[in-house]
Amino acid sequence: MNHSELFENIVRKRSYLCVGLDSEIEKIPSFLLKESDPVFEFNRRIIDSTHKYAVAYKPNIAFYECHGATGWSSLEATVKYIHRNYPDILIIADAKRGDIGNTSKMYAKAFLEKMPFDAITVAPYMGEDSITPFLSYEGKWVVLLALTSNKGSDDFQYHNDGGVRLFEHVLTVSQKWGNIDNIMYVVGATRAENLKDIRKLVPDHFLLIPGVGAQGGSLRDVSEYGMNSKCGLLVNSSRGIIFADSTADFAKVAGQKALEMQLEMEKYLSEKNLV
Amino acid sequence: MNHSELFENIVRKRSYLCVGLDSEIEKIPSFLLKESDPVFEFNRRIIDSTHKYAVAYKPNIAFYECHGATGWSSLEATVKYIHRNYPDILIIADAKRGDIGNTSKMYAKAFLEKMPFDAITVAPYMGEDSITPFLSYEGKWVVLLALTSNKGSDDFQYHNDGGVRLFEHVLTVSQKWGNIDNIMYVVGATRAENLKDIRKLVPDHFLLIPGVGAQGGSLRDVSEYGMNSKCGLLVNSSRGIIFADSTADFAKVAGQKALEMQLEMEKYLSEKNLV
Repeated sequence: MNHSELFENIVRKRSYLCVGLDSEIEKIPSFLLKESDPVFEFNRRIIDSTHKYAVAYKPNIAFYECHGATGWSSLEATVKYIHRNYPDILIIADAKRGDIGNTSKMYAKAFLEKMPFDAITVAPYMGEDSITPFLSYEGKWVVLLALTSNKGSDDFQYHNDGGVRLFEHVLTVSQKWGNIDNIMYVVGATRAENLKDIRKLVPDHFLLIPGVGAQGGSLRDVSEYGMNSKCGLLVNSSRGIIFADSTADFAKVAGQKALEMQLEMEKYLSEKNLV
Repeated sequence: MNHSELFENIVRKRSYLCVGLDSEIEKIPSFLLKESDPVFEFNRRIIDSTHKYAVAYKPNIAFYECHGATGWSSLEATVKYIHRNYPDILIIADAKRGDIGNTSKMYAKAFLEKMPFDAITVAPYMGEDSITPFLSYEGKWVVLLALTSNKGSDDFQYHNDGGVRLFEHVLTVSQKWGNIDNIMYVVGATRAENLKDIRKLVPDHFLLIPGVGAQGGSLRDVSEYGMNSKCGLLVNSSRGIIFADSTADFAKVAGQKALEMQLEMEKYLSEKNLV
């Protein structure tokens, strides 16, 4: 999927919602535990009831990896399920990988070749050769960490070299390694005030915005400061949707929560005359 | 394993060798492919023939993850095998993980709780709350990326805030989050000239040094500039040992290569009066 196709999906669905599949087994409804693969069963039902309102899904790999080979199977089943049933939805591996060139190549193979992910989050610390192996897949994306939503983002991301903070340096330098069809950036919603300045550095790239909801970010603020003429935003919500209810109605309630976000997003898209 | 125990193992074995188990299936001897788990079988034989000369093993997770659930099983079998048969050897997950607090906790669970790894490499970009969840396991270690051995390390690790380069800032700030018993640092051998200055910032911590051999770093240089009064070094070699030979003798040759490195290390330990 390229930049234009992603924008077309956003316009058609009137939504830039990414649903985070952080499917922690301790938090899924207990009646699902009798299933042979409870995590996949949970994801399947969440996906079936939210797909109309979402343009992307983002499983965070940690929640699968902590179950070893079993967790990895649940992840594979989930990604295949989305790819087969909802092929217009972007699937992002929230993996935050990054290693020396020949090793990043193996991670790229794991996520972009062996599994049908469309995108993978990558940490920039190790620089160009840790990132470019992920960029060699036509129609697939690197989602590079720039300014994250957590408290610890203060520790290193603001390291200031002659007025250029590290996250700004990451945004500027990494643009040369790809283009708007294969790189997007993570910018936390809890830093909405920075989005105006960030848009000066990356006017056209898509931004993946975590931190709305449970982490305290505001959808109105990120939409106001971050949206560009092709929307340019994917706003993620995980816990606020997938764990909104823990009864037999969990999937239905997740669908309602996703719909609420879609309706709010439609309003902001409409205010910018994009729908 | 704590700092003193690791030093005791180094003195006893007269070695600070870490063997990197980057066991790429395309590179292992083809006659092993008939085994039910070729990667584990390769690792088992390498381990049996090198364990006398090594104080640590370091599987790089990418080479397992690229085979999905199957690869994960090979990894689990390898780690359990080392832990059961050679319990005095430190096992490092070269995973370069790091995410917001509640997610890093899941990665910590995956590697330090579900599998018997003693240590995990972590990328610092997301700061304190992405790292501390790995530090809550008694006797286990975070190996934090500081200055890596690849070309891309120039891109961001030298970002200079008032004379303090990012990798120096990482070394200084992160020391407060743990101690010499639970944090060590990755410093690439290809940057041996920096080790003298790095030792001023972290005089007592262990450093994990990749990049000797295939990547061009010199064991003499890193030992001269990096060794402290408790050795303070783990020097990794991967391809130079495990892929030194691809015939039926591969394990024997790997053992010889490991022995060569151990003998050179013994010389440097002796020059510093540590053995």
